[in-house]
Amino acid sequence: MDTHTIDTADNPDPRPEEETPWLTAREQRMWRAHLEVAKLLEYQLSRELQPHNLAINDYEILVVLSEAPDHRMRMTDLATATLQSKSRLSHQITRMENAGLVLRQECPGDRRGLYAHLTEQGWETMQRVAPDHVRSVRAHFIDRFTPEQLDAIYEALAPVADHLRGLRGRS
Amino acid sequence: MDTHTIDTADNPDPRPEEETPWLTAREQRMWRAHLEVAKLLEYQLSRELQPHNLAINDYEILVVLSEAPDHRMRMTDLATATLQSKSRLSHQITRMENAGLVLRQECPGDRRGLYAHLTEQGWETMQRVAPDHVRSVRAHFIDRFTPEQLDAIYEALAPVADHLRGLRGRS
Repeated sequence: MDTHTIDTADNPDPRPEEETPWLTAREQRMWRAHLEVAKLLEYQLSRELQPHNLAINDYEILVVLSEAPDHRMRMTDLATATLQSKSRLSHQITRMENAGLVLRQECPGDRRGLYAHLTEQGWETMQRVAPDHVRSVRAHFIDRFTPEQLDAIYEALAPVADHLRGLRGRS
Repeated sequence: MDTHTIDTADNPDPRPEEETPWLTAREQRMWRAHLEVAKLLEYQLSRELQPHNLAINDYEILVVLSEAPDHRMRMTDLATATLQSKSRLSHQITRMENAGLVLRQECPGDRRGLYAHLTEQGWETMQRVAPDHVRSVRAHFIDRFTPEQLDAIYEALAPVADHLRGLRGRS
């Protein structure tokens, strides 16, 4: 995932006005840094979850369910919260059910209401793993920024997240 | 992928000094914004590449090879450049070979040297798709930052990328 490296200034060809200019060197380096950090951080955090036999998406499900009322959530809401497709989430929940971390249950009186529950074992797993995961997140990401950088990045990214969530909601 | 929401300030339990504190609210919101943008942006860019029958990883391979001398690269170097495992890259290159975009070739005189070449069709595909992809990257990411934000984020992320690349290289 990347774009061409040609800077607008390096490209003397006249372009029609409706064409989008290539990224400038300044834009390019920021774009590449974002891609690299996103990819490498996911790799590193996944790697450090391996001793716990958890994939990074499993850990995310445990966190979301542990924060939900009664440790349960409708499958459709869980898909929205974790930004996954329903079919992909369904496969993942099946794997986690086999590992004893969650339980799928129908809600009586709600024909379409299929819920994912956190099991006692899932809750214990989350509590055991969380300190290690926080340590990883701090060591490889959060503690590498000044408080000013944390705020500046948050303020820059929050509207982008809103924009992208809006697009996702419509699709 | 997330961390517990408990703020240090909300947790009166004394903790041993060696324990890592939970993320503060300020750290938490930045961490969540980063995760959301990384995930949603990949989803959106993938979606906008679909009409071109390209996965986002395919596009990345096309870009990297088109920037390489003679439009070819040793498989091991391509794995490093795209931050993929060799086995995963090998599967991807097989798919792209079947689609006519790349060609795998042995290098005479170099027994271990297996190269991936960009084909003429791969090069044409890259050139046809690039303007649309740049448009997507600008619309959903780059054009949503001020020049000052672009620089501030780059300066914050570049050392983190270096750190993570170093860890990856050792693994």
